[in-house]
Amino acid sequence: MSAETIEHRPTGWELRRERVSRHLERTALTLFANERPQDVTVERIAAAAGISMRTFFRYFASRDEVLASLPRSLIELLCARVRARPAHESLVEAFSAAVRETDQGRDADRELLLAWGLAVHRSPETVLLALARGAVSTAAAFQKAVTARLGVGPDDARAGAYAAALCGVVSYAFERWVAHGGTDSLSDTLLDALATLPDLR
Amino acid sequence: MSAETIEHRPTGWELRRERVSRHLERTALTLFANERPQDVTVERIAAAAGISMRTFFRYFASRDEVLASLPRSLIELLCARVRARPAHESLVEAFSAAVRETDQGRDADRELLLAWGLAVHRSPETVLLALARGAVSTAAAFQKAVTARLGVGPDDARAGAYAAALCGVVSYAFERWVAHGGTDSLSDTLLDALATLPDLR
Repeated sequence: MSAETIEHRPTGWELRRERVSRHLERTALTLFANERPQDVTVERIAAAAGISMRTFFRYFASRDEVLASLPRSLIELLCARVRARPAHESLVEAFSAAVRETDQGRDADRELLLAWGLAVHRSPETVLLALARGAVSTAAAFQKAVTARLGVGPDDARAGAYAAALCGVVSYAFERWVAHGGTDSLSDTLLDALATLPDLR
Repeated sequence: MSAETIEHRPTGWELRRERVSRHLERTALTLFANERPQDVTVERIAAAAGISMRTFFRYFASRDEVLASLPRSLIELLCARVRARPAHESLVEAFSAAVRETDQGRDADRELLLAWGLAVHRSPETVLLALARGAVSTAAAFQKAVTARLGVGPDDARAGAYAAALCGVVSYAFERWVAHGGTDSLSDTLLDALATLPDLR
């Protein structure tokens, strides 16, 4: 996703896609919060959301895709904003500014994110998988954003280490926020954690 | 594990336990490298290692335990050494010194670690789980070592962020080493990655 993509005005179809996707995510996370993971099938999610399985598969390829979608789209948005920050900012400055921008008017996301985090904390198997997938794709997205900012190739060791440190700190802050029941501000928790890192350039 | 535990002289039973554990790990990793993960059962590992399943279960509680054992024991050793480093050293200095100490005479581990890393890279499901479990326990071990060194409580946000950054960097370096086929020095790869972090205090 480029900086342009963020700013363009969504079409009616995109708005509908976004709305239905969020509805499916919310439904799936509610089921995960109340039932055994193995009982939360695509069939069950579609029925609870009041849509056909056929329609479900127009939005998500599998149950696990629903679970992975929300954090992935937020991380993509964050990383697009990191890349769009002025070049003179350090990595920590750019990530912090991107967190502040991404925080604007996303209360609905925050509630879903907490539900997601609680589902992840609650359920050993399924969710370790989601966690692992999420961790892998988050690390990859951070690495792309960092190599773009530093103007180095994808295998650059310094950029990789920076991205890994930033990714570790952001994940830690998110888990801390969930562990505290979502009562703190998510963006403050993220910004405090980022502020512990010295400027990485 | 305390610093004393590291230095004490192993008994005959401990040496045998260590030897048989390593033999089982090596056998399991060889099977993982050559067969589908779902085919690598406890029965299969025990048979290939030439021991009974009864004996297997004296060493490991499950197949996944075999897979998790090697990285976990090395991380515990590393963290014990981090805690034993002089108080005046920064976190990055202490972790770097601990990497150098842990590297001494562990060529056999290195070969097994590479096999472990390749199995993890190769196989989506099983191994994402092992990766997730490993990531969770590594993060916890790092956090304990860092809070001990900083003399703060387990919920300290700064210590948590530092541990997460260090854990991210160490995991990144390990994955980089595996991706390069284990041809570089593992400890140099780790030390280079740690050196990108400024001193965290």
